[in-house]
Amino acid sequence: MIAIGERINGMFTDVKDAIAAKDPAPIVSLAKRQAAAGAAYLDINVGTAAADQAGTIKWLVETAQAAVPTPLCLDSQKPDVIRAGLSACDTSRGVLLNSSPLNKKSDPDVLARYVEMANSAGGSLIALTMDREGVPQNIDRRVEIAAELLTRCMELGLAPDRLFIDPIILPVNVPGAQAQPTNILAAIDQIRLMSDPPPHITMGLSNLSQGTTERSLINRTFLAMAMSHGADSAIIDVLDEPLVDIVATVEMLMNKQIYSDSFLKAYRSTAGGQRPDK
Amino acid sequence: MIAIGERINGMFTDVKDAIAAKDPAPIVSLAKRQAAAGAAYLDINVGTAAADQAGTIKWLVETAQAAVPTPLCLDSQKPDVIRAGLSACDTSRGVLLNSSPLNKKSDPDVLARYVEMANSAGGSLIALTMDREGVPQNIDRRVEIAAELLTRCMELGLAPDRLFIDPIILPVNVPGAQAQPTNILAAIDQIRLMSDPPPHITMGLSNLSQGTTERSLINRTFLAMAMSHGADSAIIDVLDEPLVDIVATVEMLMNKQIYSDSFLKAYRSTAGGQRPDK
Repeated sequence: MIAIGERINGMFTDVKDAIAAKDPAPIVSLAKRQAAAGAAYLDINVGTAAADQAGTIKWLVETAQAAVPTPLCLDSQKPDVIRAGLSACDTSRGVLLNSSPLNKKSDPDVLARYVEMANSAGGSLIALTMDREGVPQNIDRRVEIAAELLTRCMELGLAPDRLFIDPIILPVNVPGAQAQPTNILAAIDQIRLMSDPPPHITMGLSNLSQGTTERSLINRTFLAMAMSHGADSAIIDVLDEPLVDIVATVEMLMNKQIYSDSFLKAYRSTAGGQRPDK
Repeated sequence: MIAIGERINGMFTDVKDAIAAKDPAPIVSLAKRQAAAGAAYLDINVGTAAADQAGTIKWLVETAQAAVPTPLCLDSQKPDVIRAGLSACDTSRGVLLNSSPLNKKSDPDVLARYVEMANSAGGSLIALTMDREGVPQNIDRRVEIAAELLTRCMELGLAPDRLFIDPIILPVNVPGAQAQPTNILAAIDQIRLMSDPPPHITMGLSNLSQGTTERSLINRTFLAMAMSHGADSAIIDVLDEPLVDIVATVEMLMNKQIYSDSFLKAYRSTAGGQRPDK
């Protein structure tokens, strides 16, 4: 399981405040705690509050990578912000770019620009099952977009094991969205059959439980389900201990980690090493 | 989710002692607590200590069904013990017989005898993916036996929606058994495609975690995985609240229960009604 730690994101108040005050201490703390909890990558997202997004992502990258050896996942919908983050990033550790849709009305070639940056950095890319029409609501179109993403990335020189497909989870409490989790499991089944090795499957897990009363329970339950269908990555709160316990248990039950009475502890000591670029 | 409460079983010390003393109080208490926790059936198993198995199962059946209206799941590898249990059982509530293999060296027609009893009682049957050679270790033979069970039961007049196939979970900590959970998920995928409606899938969940240090965590993690592949029943400890929370969450995520902020409570108030004979 390639766990991407979600917490260095300007949408969280502590990070937003640290950005505003240029105070490295909260960022260093989050980097260290997430690395210790088994994050394979640390997501770096400036959020929407910072006026200077390019300058802010550079500062976050420098601060986080000075604190821990964990590679980073540069997270922005703006290629220029990703490019700024890369200019400050020690990509010799590996790097993950998060994320590109198949195309956009405003930028039909957006995928090519993300792939080019990933290739230049020797890194990997998260691509969304989303196109100029938005997020599809049915299984078939999700799978079609995934196939187009895989084909296009291979044409552009990005191998399937450097591609993470994100089928996009919507909040389950939104009217009409409750069929989505099952659709996503069915889509994952099909996407995993598309190539050998298959592309990785990741997801912004916490989005599923936005606005619900049982966030951690919903997140960890769905993650077990998704992993059993072949999801091998997720952008998660690695500081949520019951969530990481479930991840460790699924890995053991799927025979990816040998059973021992201390399998929960054993998982945490090795989890950070599970990356395609290692 | 058709939850079968596992606790009235002579292998548990409290039940064994109650049987020895002919003390109905512990049985009544277990029946009431499991019914309140959402059990659709109460498993009734005399265990191995009682000398008079036929007399003991009759006493357990009479004691449990006087305490609660929940139907029973009569559990024995001996058809004569099942028959004794049925003679005392109010089958107008529904009844489940647990369980028959495809065949046995000592009793090649054992399945026909269980099916005949299930049909006479208007009930349902749990059948194991096990034959005269024992429990198969690979996916293909598990699926083949399931197909033979389904075909033979239909020939004998038991419809697929009255048949519960149990793919037999082994303890995950036994050397060599760690590939079994993944094999079982793959077998479930295939068994669910065999007929429309498909047979139910059930399993003796607690067996998976026998002898491990994290029993409840292992049980509830695998149950979420198995349900996401189509298991719609399990023989479980319904008094394990985190386990029932996971069941409720999977049902909500699979769109079988409408999301509300109180979905955990809502599940418990309706769970007992999910039975094929209602």
